[in-house]
Amino acid sequence: MTIHATEARTTTALDTPPVAGLAALRYARVQQFYAHQTALLDELRVQEFAATFTEDGVLVPAPPARPARGRAAIATALGAAHERRFGTEPVRRRHWQDALRVAELPDGSLGANYCTLVTVVRPWHPVPSLGPSAAVADVLVLDDGELRVRERRITPDHLSF
Amino acid sequence: MTIHATEARTTTALDTPPVAGLAALRYARVQQFYAHQTALLDELRVQEFAATFTEDGVLVPAPPARPARGRAAIATALGAAHERRFGTEPVRRRHWQDALRVAELPDGSLGANYCTLVTVVRPWHPVPSLGPSAAVADVLVLDDGELRVRERRITPDHLSF
Amino acid sequence: MTIHATEARTTTALDTPPVAGLAALRYARVQQFYAHQTALLDELRVQEFAATFTEDGVLVPAPPARPARGRAAIATALGAAHERRFGTEPVRRRHWQDALRVAELPDGSLGANYCTLVTVVRPWHPVPSLGPSAAVADVLVLDDGELRVRERRITPDHLSF
Repeated sequence: MTIHATEARTTTALDTPPVAGLAALRYARVQQFYAHQTALLDELRVQEFAATFTEDGVLVPAPPARPARGRAAIATALGAAHERRFGTEPVRRRHWQDALRVAELPDGSLGANYCTLVTVVRPWHPVPSLGPSAAVADVLVLDDGELRVRERRITPDHLSF
Repeated sequence: MTIHATEARTTTALDTPPVAGLAALRYARVQQFYAHQTALLDELRVQEFAATFTEDGVLVPAPPARPARGRAAIATALGAAHERRFGTEPVRRRHWQDALRVAELPDGSLGANYCTLVTVVRPWHPVPSLGPSAAVADVLVLDDGELRVRERRITPDHLSF
Repeated sequence: MTIHATEARTTTALDTPPVAGLAALRYARVQQFYAHQTALLDELRVQEFAATFTEDGVLVPAPPARPARGRAAIATALGAAHERRFGTEPVRRRHWQDALRVAELPDGSLGANYCTLVTVVRPWHPVPSLGPSAAVADVLVLDDGELRVRERRITPDHLSF
């Protein structure tokens, strides 16, 4: 079906590419992907989070942590990192993403770059702890009809100097 | 009028659904709705904010606050909550939203889930106070041609354990 | 080429304007513009940042700083403001944008309003410093096929009372 936008107004140059083209549609779709993936991350649903990577996906965290290859390794690494930092302490961690840039790569995949800021909330305390922030570089592919991450590289801002 | 995207490039699988379809258009539209609604909230324009709910809209804040039903009640509740917290102190409060997920519900309405983080700024002091953060679950409907909230449920993160 | 959205589902009122129309496409495009511009700002690539303004673009910061007119002046002002605040101290500053509202102005340009929150990270310290936050009002135009800023007015929240 063709998208019929039967708006009773005149189109202007602002309604044609590069302002309003396919890249804009794709951009909104990629935003949705990250919203869902971030919710899984923040709820520590590590298996479902790992399933947003391709089977052979790679997660490259900041050193000294080692890259995790494949979904099982990614799920394990995520749980282990959380336990290392918070032990059994009850916390609710959130990632706030911004400055998402999406570009088509030569091989047809998508390069996505964005920033992320972590907040950590503890029971009954309304003021979140802040940090770290990081730059994230992803390679996204269409995998069986779904957007998935083939590679993620995370560079924490405080280790980026 | 049909959207003509006369870009001089080849379309790829990334330009077809599910990557670039109607859901992506709708997603961008819902983002716009929240940007406008949040600006009204942050400027404490309580009547206009309440008008972004349906006539019988419901706002369910965190206990012990009680649900507010209908626009008049929502406007009143908003003003009262602000006064309870800040009295007559001059503050500028902002809500930063992220991780917006939108899904069509069986009855044709939209379920929208997102996170929000509050900052509070006081005159002459450049460092905002932070918190609380919360998870918000909305039901959106097309009401007389406009997107409006039929129901909003707010779960502050520090009360969610 | 026409965007063919061959999704195997029924369209509803939620898939037609005003929910899913040209304005939504344009909105996603404007978000992309800001993501790219913000990355240049945060990386202190002042010449490239200035090139996202029109030749005669104006940047109006908070007083007592004076408006900067033209790309060379904007690049200089940006570098000078950074040096005034941080000297030669190594910092990584980020701007987090939210509540973007876009509206067509009578002359065919776009008015864009949004909020911004600054974080500052220092080497080895994972907790960012926060602030200030500000309201930004831009006028965007299509300039030689690219979105560019013709005018930017910044109102820091702590100076807005």
